[in-house]
Amino acid sequence: MAHAPSSLLPLAPETLERLRRVSTPTLTTQLYKLGFRSTFLHGVRPLCPERRMAGEAVTVRFAPAREDRAGYEMLADPAYPQRHAIEHIAPGQVLVMDCRGVASAANAGDILISRLHARGAAGLVLDGGIRDYVSVQAFGFPVYALGPAAPAHVVRHVAVDENVPIGCAEVLVVPGDVMVGDGEGVVCIPRAVADTVAARGLEQEELEAFILEKVRKGAPLPGTYPPGDATLAEFEAWKRRRQS
Amino acid sequence: MAHAPSSLLPLAPETLERLRRVSTPTLTTQLYKLGFRSTFLHGVRPLCPERRMAGEAVTVRFAPAREDRAGYEMLADPAYPQRHAIEHIAPGQVLVMDCRGVASAANAGDILISRLHARGAAGLVLDGGIRDYVSVQAFGFPVYALGPAAPAHVVRHVAVDENVPIGCAEVLVVPGDVMVGDGEGVVCIPRAVADTVAARGLEQEELEAFILEKVRKGAPLPGTYPPGDATLAEFEAWKRRRQS
Amino acid sequence: MAHAPSSLLPLAPETLERLRRVSTPTLTTQLYKLGFRSTFLHGVRPLCPERRMAGEAVTVRFAPAREDRAGYEMLADPAYPQRHAIEHIAPGQVLVMDCRGVASAANAGDILISRLHARGAAGLVLDGGIRDYVSVQAFGFPVYALGPAAPAHVVRHVAVDENVPIGCAEVLVVPGDVMVGDGEGVVCIPRAVADTVAARGLEQEELEAFILEKVRKGAPLPGTYPPGDATLAEFEAWKRRRQS
Amino acid sequence: MAHAPSSLLPLAPETLERLRRVSTPTLTTQLYKLGFRSTFLHGVRPLCPERRMAGEAVTVRFAPAREDRAGYEMLADPAYPQRHAIEHIAPGQVLVMDCRGVASAANAGDILISRLHARGAAGLVLDGGIRDYVSVQAFGFPVYALGPAAPAHVVRHVAVDENVPIGCAEVLVVPGDVMVGDGEGVVCIPRAVADTVAARGLEQEELEAFILEKVRKGAPLPGTYPPGDATLAEFEAWKRRRQS
Amino acid sequence: MAHAPSSLLPLAPETLERLRRVSTPTLTTQLYKLGFRSTFLHGVRPLCPERRMAGEAVTVRFAPAREDRAGYEMLADPAYPQRHAIEHIAPGQVLVMDCRGVASAANAGDILISRLHARGAAGLVLDGGIRDYVSVQAFGFPVYALGPAAPAHVVRHVAVDENVPIGCAEVLVVPGDVMVGDGEGVVCIPRAVADTVAARGLEQEELEAFILEKVRKGAPLPGTYPPGDATLAEFEAWKRRRQS
Amino acid sequence: MAHAPSSLLPLAPETLERLRRVSTPTLTTQLYKLGFRSTFLHGVRPLCPERRMAGEAVTVRFAPAREDRAGYEMLADPAYPQRHAIEHIAPGQVLVMDCRGVASAANAGDILISRLHARGAAGLVLDGGIRDYVSVQAFGFPVYALGPAAPAHVVRHVAVDENVPIGCAEVLVVPGDVMVGDGEGVVCIPRAVADTVAARGLEQEELEAFILEKVRKGAPLPGTYPPGDATLAEFEAWKRRRQS
Repeated sequence: MAHAPSSLLPLAPETLERLRRVSTPTLTTQLYKLGFRSTFLHGVRPLCPERRMAGEAVTVRFAPAREDRAGYEMLADPAYPQRHAIEHIAPGQVLVMDCRGVASAANAGDILISRLHARGAAGLVLDGGIRDYVSVQAFGFPVYALGPAAPAHVVRHVAVDENVPIGCAEVLVVPGDVMVGDGEGVVCIPRAVADTVAARGLEQEELEAFILEKVRKGAPLPGTYPPGDATLAEFEAWKRRRQS
Repeated sequence: MAHAPSSLLPLAPETLERLRRVSTPTLTTQLYKLGFRSTFLHGVRPLCPERRMAGEAVTVRFAPAREDRAGYEMLADPAYPQRHAIEHIAPGQVLVMDCRGVASAANAGDILISRLHARGAAGLVLDGGIRDYVSVQAFGFPVYALGPAAPAHVVRHVAVDENVPIGCAEVLVVPGDVMVGDGEGVVCIPRAVADTVAARGLEQEELEAFILEKVRKGAPLPGTYPPGDATLAEFEAWKRRRQS
Repeated sequence: MAHAPSSLLPLAPETLERLRRVSTPTLTTQLYKLGFRSTFLHGVRPLCPERRMAGEAVTVRFAPAREDRAGYEMLADPAYPQRHAIEHIAPGQVLVMDCRGVASAANAGDILISRLHARGAAGLVLDGGIRDYVSVQAFGFPVYALGPAAPAHVVRHVAVDENVPIGCAEVLVVPGDVMVGDGEGVVCIPRAVADTVAARGLEQEELEAFILEKVRKGAPLPGTYPPGDATLAEFEAWKRRRQS
Repeated sequence: MAHAPSSLLPLAPETLERLRRVSTPTLTTQLYKLGFRSTFLHGVRPLCPERRMAGEAVTVRFAPAREDRAGYEMLADPAYPQRHAIEHIAPGQVLVMDCRGVASAANAGDILISRLHARGAAGLVLDGGIRDYVSVQAFGFPVYALGPAAPAHVVRHVAVDENVPIGCAEVLVVPGDVMVGDGEGVVCIPRAVADTVAARGLEQEELEAFILEKVRKGAPLPGTYPPGDATLAEFEAWKRRRQS
Repeated sequence: MAHAPSSLLPLAPETLERLRRVSTPTLTTQLYKLGFRSTFLHGVRPLCPERRMAGEAVTVRFAPAREDRAGYEMLADPAYPQRHAIEHIAPGQVLVMDCRGVASAANAGDILISRLHARGAAGLVLDGGIRDYVSVQAFGFPVYALGPAAPAHVVRHVAVDENVPIGCAEVLVVPGDVMVGDGEGVVCIPRAVADTVAARGLEQEELEAFILEKVRKGAPLPGTYPPGDATLAEFEAWKRRRQS
Repeated sequence: MAHAPSSLLPLAPETLERLRRVSTPTLTTQLYKLGFRSTFLHGVRPLCPERRMAGEAVTVRFAPAREDRAGYEMLADPAYPQRHAIEHIAPGQVLVMDCRGVASAANAGDILISRLHARGAAGLVLDGGIRDYVSVQAFGFPVYALGPAAPAHVVRHVAVDENVPIGCAEVLVVPGDVMVGDGEGVVCIPRAVADTVAARGLEQEELEAFILEKVRKGAPLPGTYPPGDATLAEFEAWKRRRQS
């Protein structure tokens, strides 16, 4: 099982930019149509709902703390996976942490998140808590978490691995997958389908904008949503009018 | 068990208007005094806390999805209960959906909610998720749900019935019951007691406004809350002064 | 087990004032360094996140309701522990209620909270629900709870004791302990260590402000956070400059 | 949506008899290979693990109790769905009850189960509790439930429907589906695939018996489980020897 | 709130003996008919299902452990409530412990249970774990708990009170209430109604034995269960025949 | 972080044999006295309660399944971590699998467990389900799991790693730690303290056997349990008598 970033398939150059313009509901629908049923990180919410995020995943894995393997002294070791991953993240990447769904401990706070920002990271996603919550919200960096928690992670966790496949909020995240976040939460897009999903997602967004406009003007659901042939023909005409 | 709306007892003409002015805590207290202990839908929160909602319930029931009974193609069938109920709702009614308490799938989004609004519905209540959450909040239609979720309902549910008694957030909802929502959440009022609850609720609101004023001015709890005879006499005098 | 306030160790006069300036993440860290692992009340959130709270705990304990021991008539008894505790709270104290983690019933609303305010209490903390949520938020008194709930507590609970050690949100709270709240939630500080925690907490806040400034300017984590000798020396110099 | 038994596809005559000889792990594997992922009723355990059960489902649906719609007096009404379904069950059918996953109330006890037995029913499946647990275990009729519970169902539920699609332990059960139970629990087989699953399941049982024998004699996993071509050839020879 | 045993109403002399012969389902039904809905301790199971237990409750209350208030040294203090309650229990009493529903720590093991037995106690009930589970099962003393757990209670709890009203498995238990256990679990009977419940419970047991016999012989449910006038008349005749 | 077995500290030769004679409650107490609070795998139960197990841990880690990374075809790959770990386990080792606490899927059944037995493994521990439950129980190999489940693990999991530190039932398990199981469940002993815990555990067992004998003969708790100086002196004399 090779996790080295060098072995990853390249993404199309416009994919990340496109994904920043597609909503997570649309992305889950496109993924479902490709056969993926579980791609939305349940319970993980944006600290800044107005921000959009898209980037490739690097991962950290936490295991339960034990008195001989946890404590503040570990944190000074530059090889400690939580600190090492932050210190070596590349610009545009998203750090995803497997915090085992524990909401009552904080796996990052304002200092670590400021360092991620300084490194040029695109975002932080975790199925755990965030401390300094109010100050992190004000800072504006894209963070997606279970909620606020004051206690440091060493009370519950020890970081044990970096850049391995993890579960986060019951979704598989493989290093190199594409994480996309909006005001609803976060979707993990398997890398091999990211280009396809980005392209189809943009089309669906356009079609649904058209349908929403029709429904707000009084169109009935049958034939409109999902769209029948007549609606699809109207949509094509509408697109042509917009483009010209 | 007849669920036809035609067989329903008529409500007093002023009942819905009154219920829009009574808070859900007051309604649960009046229902408790009539012997009803479980009428507040736990965990179901307003997307627009400043809106008030009151209307008669129509219902949709979802069951667990199965690969031979779910998928996007079902949604094009005008008889699919979720779509049929929305398309046939009457002005002033509230659509209540039994989503089995599943927060991780969305049973409606901005297109369906726009159609409910266009049909003149009074609101939407569900023990499930909502997609397009931020845009639905901005739209302003009264919606009460467990929270945001990106994935469409077909991942977890299939709609199987319309206008039958359901459980929603652990509360029985019978078609024709009166759903009332405010910034706290939603109460289901059994139809047979709706007129009584509306009348008594308004009286309690007035009494509690009087008590709150006294307590803010320094009155002690004993004798004031709950009110003793002296406080009740004062209240009657206060009401007379306000009316004259 | 003596619970009489008279038997309590005195706090240093500046302790409460200091604690109002230290964040709950910092407090949990200082408590962890003294050996206390579970001091943050999980899931208990501020209704007014911008308020800070610090005060000594008085407690009320609720047990499950039973038809012969619950109901609105109990509430008129001045000895009913919930009402008695509110009516006899001293200025600056924080009322902490053990509501057994039940989010679906409300153990206080705007009238009782107004009485706490009139008595000069410093705050209210409970692992239960609050009714009249929106109006309580607007009132501005420091309240920390699980969330909104319309039904009165008598549906689920009966108050059975006052000023005994309780569990609240899985944390032991002994009368006389110091409760501190901020935008993140609430920490319970064992009384015997409150002076120490207040003093050390202020120092940590200052050091972390210095570290955050360095990290925002681009300092790497190793050597900075946690601080190595060079960073600590810089910090001492920075402090001296600020003081002079 | 037609639920009338008359509209059901016929099953092959040997299907039920075959299904009684196939284990539930094998059935879930065959169903997975046909695309069905969620067919095992989680948490529903046999009261008599040594019994096997196979039969067509009839269903009852329960909703949350409410003071105006529940109580012992309902039970005397021959149309009450719980009683009506039991009284009208056909020989060989399995009664499946949607008890909303509530383990703390009992939806049947020794009298109702004795009546099911007298009617010739093949079994009872529910995601709720059973009272008179020890006596029901001794009686020997195939019952699958969440566990023992003393309180009657009227404390928590009201029966509202009969022979409609339901959810039971998070699995869709449509009237006419085939329920199969063994010492592990219960699988719901969609009617349209029951004949196929029965046939393929028997074949898999035979192959796995052969593999188990090889592994117990020391065969390594690779090539044996899952079986490679050599193992499959050996199996065919073994089958021929057994048949001759 | 007086908890002194001396202030308790006397029970009729035959009540405990009768209650040992009535099943917990019957007791919950009789209590429901008197208006009590929540009297069965959910999830608390017998270690020896064949034993019956009836006796008056004495109680111990546990709160969350904290590093300054828990540890093995406390256990040597004869005033520690857990140890004090065991050492002072009277013959025929049942010790009920509020363990906050924590299944992962053990609040008693074979030594403490042997001491309860030596003191003549009638049983032990707790919503927590039991260590030395297999040996306690073999010992045969009536114990009802959530299941086995190896860690001692000091890891999670500190005992803080004795003989106060408690919650146990979500049921109120007041000292002096009557605890009855059988193979299904435990019911708490409020003391004031124990005589009534014992008398009516025995009658119901007799009637249901008669009904079960009829149903096993083929009687239909309508008219038989619940019994109509004809069945009740038959029952009276049957009772007379049995008595003569 | 080195996980290679070669780098492990050697255990004293008698340690595993001793640990097989010490109960899990005693082990958790000795570990607590060394500062370890969380070593008992909660909810993981023996399929054969009468068996004892002790051996060094090798581990497998599962992550959530995804449609492109799960399915029966993976299982034929000899490098698939679940299969590879079983095929390469050394005699006397215990396989521990991190199944993310999912009880509704089975991570092993009779064929894989037979292979573990044929390889000479000492046991299998997992926080997941077991299929072929009844047949595995009869086989007698030491297995500790959450319970029976029919569906194969591919429905919920993909195996992603071998011999890394994992969480199992909320306890950290590092390859080389010593797993001990009895009728109560499983304890994970950090390797560095295994010799000490084995020696002290045996002493505690002997002392508690002596105390239990005294308590069954009527000794009061104070002075006996925990033992005071007089009891300890008696115990020393009793040991000398037994040894001579």
